[in-house]
Amino acid sequence: MVEEEKDPGSEYFDSDVTDRERAIFEGAITLGALYHQFVGTPIRSVESLEKAIKESALAHPFIEDADIQVIEAEKKGKAPFDYPILTGEMIEITLTTRYKDAQVELGMRRIPELDFPLMYIENVSE
Amino acid sequence: MVEEEKDPGSEYFDSDVTDRERAIFEGAITLGALYHQFVGTPIRSVESLEKAIKESALAHPFIEDADIQVIEAEKKGKAPFDYPILTGEMIEITLTTRYKDAQVELGMRRIPELDFPLMYIENVSE
Amino acid sequence: MVEEEKDPGSEYFDSDVTDRERAIFEGAITLGALYHQFVGTPIRSVESLEKAIKESALAHPFIEDADIQVIEAEKKGKAPFDYPILTGEMIEITLTTRYKDAQVELGMRRIPELDFPLMYIENVSE
Amino acid sequence: MVEEEKDPGSEYFDSDVTDRERAIFEGAITLGALYHQFVGTPIRSVESLEKAIKESALAHPFIEDADIQVIEAEKKGKAPFDYPILTGEMIEITLTTRYKDAQVELGMRRIPELDFPLMYIENVSE
Repeated sequence: MVEEEKDPGSEYFDSDVTDRERAIFEGAITLGALYHQFVGTPIRSVESLEKAIKESALAHPFIEDADIQVIEAEKKGKAPFDYPILTGEMIEITLTTRYKDAQVELGMRRIPELDFPLMYIENVSE
Repeated sequence: MVEEEKDPGSEYFDSDVTDRERAIFEGAITLGALYHQFVGTPIRSVESLEKAIKESALAHPFIEDADIQVIEAEKKGKAPFDYPILTGEMIEITLTTRYKDAQVELGMRRIPELDFPLMYIENVSE
Repeated sequence: MVEEEKDPGSEYFDSDVTDRERAIFEGAITLGALYHQFVGTPIRSVESLEKAIKESALAHPFIEDADIQVIEAEKKGKAPFDYPILTGEMIEITLTTRYKDAQVELGMRRIPELDFPLMYIENVSE
Repeated sequence: MVEEEKDPGSEYFDSDVTDRERAIFEGAITLGALYHQFVGTPIRSVESLEKAIKESALAHPFIEDADIQVIEAEKKGKAPFDYPILTGEMIEITLTTRYKDAQVELGMRRIPELDFPLMYIENVSE
């Protein structure tokens, strides 16, 4: 059994905030963080980038699990200027967060109909 | 009256997610985004950096208002290497987000007792 | 007359490095810095972003002048997910650096033939 | 023998630029890029972060070799807010760049006397 994480930060929150809301809050911060930390990275190895993003996700508080997929881009341009640069459209993230008894699954992926890398809440459970 | 923002993304969310939760989600993404986009920036003008962070916050969906304060750092090091670099401890953010009738105020500031730039939910109303 | 900038860092450089080379070095660092600091930024105001990038450029040592153009992107996607995100292709930078008597003009812009935002040295003078 | 890298970008450079200068230019861009791409990353695994930074360095044109050390920070703050965030002071970089016959070794490390993570040119050879 995983021990419940302590939270010395809770006293700074509106007391009305539910555990579900807190679990969503922490996951959403991490989604925004990962996107804006890593977009722009020149890519040589998709695997090492995925691993670094995953480890960075798991450093955040209340993140139980993280799955990261970087979609390999087609090379364009001319060598040696033909390396891909990470964009939001190339990242797929699934995070599981837990705050006390509330567990949330949230993620990011490009939605073709929106032409946008949407961040969304996939599932909430208590 | 501000017109209600459309949301073609809603169908990708768990139908169980409340308006409050969605307003929290969007604000938390923006907090994570601002931190990880701008931390590391060399600073010459606090005002222009605050303005750029604020405009970037307001570009995000469902953000109604944003207040950004960058705390001026003491110069250290020797000229010309004595310019400050933006860290999380130097940023204070207050965001107001709205999703339908739910309005949330959330923010980030350094909490001395935690020695950490905490992100928190200040107020939730419906 | 602008006073010559002091350089307490010079003793850590190979003594063989010329003033021209040092002026190129400092400008190139700044080009790489600006690209990777700001790519990924959600854009609402091109002007405030250009100003923040310029101020950040001028904070770097040995940068005399900086001109920044952010090329406005077409909106795509559906509101409210239709805001542009800064990419390397959208930034045009011209920097002037000086180290002692050497002055260098360098920059970055998208070269259509290369399909790449190339960083280049435009002019070197002593 | 490593084949000489092609350079379709050379025609956009001042024809006066030497091979040494070009090798310095490309390495300095990469130093600025690595710093501003990765500073701010929450750290759980130093090894995976070092590997991702190294791979990103090697994606850049004309970079022959890259050695990255991330200095582990002491934990501060209270759990779960006690994870380290990458700062410039924590990164040591050594890059080898080559442009035609010119080879340059350059790097970044915190210089205690300057209280600054200095970028410098260690060695230039032709």
